Amino acid sequence: MTEQKATNIAWHLGHVTREERALLMRQNPCCIWLTGLSASGKSTIAMALEQVLIQRGHAAYVLDGDNVRHGLNKNLGFSPDDRAENIRRIGEVARLFCDAGLIVITAFISPYREDRQKARALIAPDDFIEVFADAPINVCASRDPKGLYEKAMRGEVKSFTGVSPDAPYEPPLNPEIHLLTGQISVPECVSAILDYLVQQGILHAR
Amino acid sequence: MTEQKATNIAWHLGHVTREERALLMRQNPCCIWLTGLSASGKSTIAMALEQVLIQRGHAAYVLDGDNVRHGLNKNLGFSPDDRAENIRRIGEVARLFCDAGLIVITAFISPYREDRQKARALIAPDDFIEVFADAPINVCASRDPKGLYEKAMRGEVKSFTGVSPDAPYEPPLNPEIHLLTGQISVPECVSAILDYLVQQGILHAR
Repeated sequence: MTEQKATNIAWHLGHVTREERALLMRQNPCCIWLTGLSASGKSTIAMALEQVLIQRGHAAYVLDGDNVRHGLNKNLGFSPDDRAENIRRIGEVARLFCDAGLIVITAFISPYREDRQKARALIAPDDFIEVFADAPINVCASRDPKGLYEKAMRGEVKSFTGVSPDAPYEPPLNPEIHLLTGQISVPECVSAILDYLVQQGILHAR
Repeated sequence: MTEQKATNIAWHLGHVTREERALLMRQNPCCIWLTGLSASGKSTIAMALEQVLIQRGHAAYVLDGDNVRHGLNKNLGFSPDDRAENIRRIGEVARLFCDAGLIVITAFISPYREDRQKARALIAPDDFIEVFADAPINVCASRDPKGLYEKAMRGEVKSFTGVSPDAPYEPPLNPEIHLLTGQISVPECVSAILDYLVQQGILHAR
């Protein structure tokens, strides 16, 4: 038997539809947008969630400081304009990932409601799942894996969210998922998000 | 039987490896970088290739002017600096898609060798498949779906690649795939790329 050749396949010349992708990937695309203070657990939860989704056969990907700040956004600093552009580009890339059919998980402080709102509007409100990683600042400061809170409290780090007067954190008013990350474990946080994804019909039966 | 809970799953706290993703997705990630004059067939080939890959169960996605110029790169114009930044961001996004395990197909004129070389270096040389959509300029000008060649020849469009003296097209010197898009059909172009992907072991048996 000869191998099927592309020339024998009928196609329409246009982008693949959202439905065709969802069928292939057995999932609806969405953006799980984690927001919270530094050391509130965003990246740890994001990576653990990605791992579980991949293990279950889903296509998922984490956008975080590691792969964005040093790549796409390496020409941005921490001025207000650059912070806004940072979140804008992340929102646009998350939109492209959703368009490609993936579950994209973002893990950025994203302190401003307006910026998160813009990302939601960009991606499509129904596909945007805002997850508040909510730990008291004293808990975050006591974890302080990079020693940043201590430096910020001594004034050695400028514009540090939640510490410096010019860098407030605006908590979500109505997030899809609210995780008390100072009280519950990472596996419990991941379970809560997975339960939500199943409830919402985002993960299809296999 | 109760549903498996995330709390019962062992995970390591780190990014999912390239190997784990390749296994799930039954493909090695790569970037198929189409380059060529306006109207040389890049977008048509990209969309047809994406369609065939999706139909065969692969995760693939086209980055082109439609979804990039109006989104991520909407704050860029056509100055030399902005053109370079346009291609840089596309390269960075293609890298993120490869990192997520996808086959990403880019369809941009990308006229400068240096910019394409930078994208190759960024993505990882082995994952970068340069595809030259090579049609003579008179063929491209005769297709001219947007009437741009005519306007450029009348000087009404500035810096038009291949027409304006300040906007040369630098053909690839050693592309992985060279398609004579003025002579062969779109299905033949798609077949040639698919054959290459199979030869290179990028598409795994299912």
